[in-house]
Amino acid sequence: MNRYAVFHAADSTYCFPASPHELTLRLRAARDDLAAAEVIYESKYVFGTSQRRTPLRKIGSSELFDYYSVTLRLQDTRVAYVFYLDDGESRFYFSEDGVTDSYDFSLGYYNFFQYPYINRCDVPQRVEWMEHAVFYQIFVDRFRRGARDKDTSYINLNWGGIPHPGSFAGGDLDGVTERLDHIQALGCSAIYLTPVFQSPTNHKYDVVDYYRVDPHFGGDEALRRLVRAAHSRGMRVVLDGVFNHCSMYLRQFQDVVKKGRDSAYYSWFLIDGDFPDPARGNYEMFASCEYMPKWNTSCREAQDYLIGVGRHYIREYGIDGWRLDVCDEVSHVFWRRFRQAIKEEDPQAVLIGENWHDASASLRGDQYDSIMNYAFTKACLDFFAAGRLDARHMAWRLNEILMRNTDTADRMMLNLLDSHDTNRFFTEVGGDREAFHAALCLLYLFPGAPCIFYGTEFYTPGGYDPDCRRCMDWARKDTAAPLLAKLAALPREGEIAIGEENGVLVVERGECALYINRTQTAALVRGRQIRENSHLLLKGGEPI
Amino acid sequence: MNRYAVFHAADSTYCFPASPHELTLRLRAARDDLAAAEVIYESKYVFGTSQRRTPLRKIGSSELFDYYSVTLRLQDTRVAYVFYLDDGESRFYFSEDGVTDSYDFSLGYYNFFQYPYINRCDVPQRVEWMEHAVFYQIFVDRFRRGARDKDTSYINLNWGGIPHPGSFAGGDLDGVTERLDHIQALGCSAIYLTPVFQSPTNHKYDVVDYYRVDPHFGGDEALRRLVRAAHSRGMRVVLDGVFNHCSMYLRQFQDVVKKGRDSAYYSWFLIDGDFPDPARGNYEMFASCEYMPKWNTSCREAQDYLIGVGRHYIREYGIDGWRLDVCDEVSHVFWRRFRQAIKEEDPQAVLIGENWHDASASLRGDQYDSIMNYAFTKACLDFFAAGRLDARHMAWRLNEILMRNTDTADRMMLNLLDSHDTNRFFTEVGGDREAFHAALCLLYLFPGAPCIFYGTEFYTPGGYDPDCRRCMDWARKDTAAPLLAKLAALPREGEIAIGEENGVLVVERGECALYINRTQTAALVRGRQIRENSHLLLKGGEPI
Repeated sequence: MNRYAVFHAADSTYCFPASPHELTLRLRAARDDLAAAEVIYESKYVFGTSQRRTPLRKIGSSELFDYYSVTLRLQDTRVAYVFYLDDGESRFYFSEDGVTDSYDFSLGYYNFFQYPYINRCDVPQRVEWMEHAVFYQIFVDRFRRGARDKDTSYINLNWGGIPHPGSFAGGDLDGVTERLDHIQALGCSAIYLTPVFQSPTNHKYDVVDYYRVDPHFGGDEALRRLVRAAHSRGMRVVLDGVFNHCSMYLRQFQDVVKKGRDSAYYSWFLIDGDFPDPARGNYEMFASCEYMPKWNTSCREAQDYLIGVGRHYIREYGIDGWRLDVCDEVSHVFWRRFRQAIKEEDPQAVLIGENWHDASASLRGDQYDSIMNYAFTKACLDFFAAGRLDARHMAWRLNEILMRNTDTADRMMLNLLDSHDTNRFFTEVGGDREAFHAALCLLYLFPGAPCIFYGTEFYTPGGYDPDCRRCMDWARKDTAAPLLAKLAALPREGEIAIGEENGVLVVERGECALYINRTQTAALVRGRQIRENSHLLLKGGEPI
Repeated sequence: MNRYAVFHAADSTYCFPASPHELTLRLRAARDDLAAAEVIYESKYVFGTSQRRTPLRKIGSSELFDYYSVTLRLQDTRVAYVFYLDDGESRFYFSEDGVTDSYDFSLGYYNFFQYPYINRCDVPQRVEWMEHAVFYQIFVDRFRRGARDKDTSYINLNWGGIPHPGSFAGGDLDGVTERLDHIQALGCSAIYLTPVFQSPTNHKYDVVDYYRVDPHFGGDEALRRLVRAAHSRGMRVVLDGVFNHCSMYLRQFQDVVKKGRDSAYYSWFLIDGDFPDPARGNYEMFASCEYMPKWNTSCREAQDYLIGVGRHYIREYGIDGWRLDVCDEVSHVFWRRFRQAIKEEDPQAVLIGENWHDASASLRGDQYDSIMNYAFTKACLDFFAAGRLDARHMAWRLNEILMRNTDTADRMMLNLLDSHDTNRFFTEVGGDREAFHAALCLLYLFPGAPCIFYGTEFYTPGGYDPDCRRCMDWARKDTAAPLLAKLAALPREGEIAIGEENGVLVVERGECALYINRTQTAALVRGRQIRENSHLLLKGGEPI
């Protein structure tokens, strides 16, 4: 047995409560190394004298590893356990002291693995609607301008013109409300809007007033109308919460600019010196943008302020959650408090972090529920666009991504092919519709909630910001809408199995199966001929 | 390169802030596999275009692995990084996407490792006195009976008699106060007392009144006298906080026994049915002890009550921290709130959990500071007593134990050879004084705070509870006190290096070195002859 490969860790993504009486265990071993894996477990108070055994199931493979899992249903949740591994020749035990030939159960209390007790408040709570949601992401200034009157003097881009960083095209929330039919017809059940609060820019990531919806976007009442209209259709609305930084024109920051250390808000920001000076940039900021000073989310008062904002839109507007901008640069202490406050307002409000990397430490049920799954995005780019991954490596990569987080978090992940922060996926695949459609099929079958960026339905091309933020071309007739509607109707349930056969990516989930052949050769998979450069989606064995 | 062995994880014990401007990274690889390891890092916002490099240092080995580490000093703490590994033949990159032959820095924002920003409130706070403390653990009923009058009718064991589970020998807090000279002369700077609150048992783990020091132990005033006397000598006092369970005679539990679901305290416990019935044991409890019902530490009101207790003894008595009984069965949510409350009262109050297993998930700065290091105890049993480990395996085991937790946590660990919950170590080594002394040397050199159980200084033997809880034999002349005092005076500073040479365990730390030969053959180590079955402790190159 390859002992270097064997891995497990207590109270981690390898050992987590699935419910108040269920404990999920995972085990990693070298690929194709084990003939069988079992867990030997029992209440820790009788483990020396009494044990139960149950096999683990192989749930996926990566290039190097096989992953095994089992969910134990328990009366007594004070669990001690060790693994029993069989490589076909020899048998081993795996405990906190590593892999050993034998194991002394009478001294197990020193070195068994344990999950000492499942306390209810430690069980990561599911946001159940998230597991079945389909998201539609809207960059508000570019989606649609509604019919209501507003001061339009700020608009400097004709609808459809080439956007520049400073362009204002006039899109607003009433425009979204007017097009809920369109969005719902795509099968989308939730909308995620880029920021809507008062701000001098088109993207509004530099917030000047967190308590005011920007008049460019129709003001507070437009948000109320949108949420009301969406809810009446059973649709959800998630707002973009920018709690990492703000605008330098925010009242509190301006107070510090004026009064320096004497300002009550001095400690709300991270200033090197007595006064913040935008010309010198002597304070922490987003990226290298002096106009976006960073919040000091270690400061209790700043935390309180931002938590107040978080509560306000849940309570007063009934929004269904927050997408959390640059959440990874915000303190864990803040997110724990923020989560508690939001879930007090609405336990089913979702918290979706923007963290492009491994966020497993923040997805254990005490901080956010979900992240924008850019690791999935990157895998799709590598497989569908750049050809950096073949089907086998793609399967391995996808399994690794699933193993980064608990099952609970995986089921709430916001999966995406592109966003306002990337090139358009349609452009990344060079306009190859086969690749685009196949990627969409995968997106909708993968555990979590698929999220499509506005314009995906019209095969909208686009490079990096601002090109990916073009005005929606409503006149366009060429549409992927029927495919998207079909995909949204798939039963996204059941365990996922991802593998490769004869060069074809094979994804199975519940009654669905997806075969993707990105090679130049036809291949036979499970009795079906999959043409070169094609994909096949089955439901109950029938192509759809 | 053995790619199965390579391991790193973001925001874990492999990547943690050491201070507001320092980030410690660790890397694992197969033992003796790498010629060099470097980290390539930079602010995440310029990582595609600018990188810095610095080598990692090998800090220890286990049976399978070498561990590397580096602490980066940073201006901009928004860090992206990948590792560059050289096995002497080939060079590899190691990122979130695993080990690869090449790495595309221009797409690094998708798969570099990152520590996105060091927020001050996320930096685990050190309890500085803990890093230099030497603890003396006292089982109060058996240490000494003080001179003050009290009702002695409960005493049923003559001092020195064989203790039974129900024995009361009469030890109390004034007895401890009277013997502070003795404890301090051993070089001990902190006292950890088993529970002192009102309780019908000698061990007092079944608390009846958390707000009253047991009259058996002298009552509230005796605790005040002890803390005052200890502090006047610069000594610390840590109490045992039993927040996992209580006595069935606790007022609140009795209220539930009487009123069932109608009691305001029903949800404070975990009851299956309308009424708790000790005869049926239809509630959660400690182990299988019906007389110790388990607290529901998911219940906010119960949390508040116990947090109030935690605050009370810091504020009103000035105690220096809590040892937390069965902390692993108590909710993480509770510990986070408890920690915040205690640190508000006194940032230098220490929280030492009782978790015999891997507690790394709770030692990241948001829950407890430290645990009783029973993994160290087990290693010492295996090396000094049972002979299950030779010097090489002992060195490997000790390094693995250090790698379980962050450096910050390691420096606050409560290391022990025995306690009220184990056999006496002197008995475990069969009375072998050489083994006993060598183990004590190791105990005092290991990172963290050594903790000796009362009676260690008198070579007290003892099997499992109650035999390990014998009355202190104050008449005893045979004493290890001079050795303990010498060990306590060692400068416990600097990095530790643990290895093996010619069958001898070699431990180096700062200006100290310790050689332990547990074999039957003399061995030459660094020009010094280490006799069979002996040890040598050096300070500044001189034996002490």
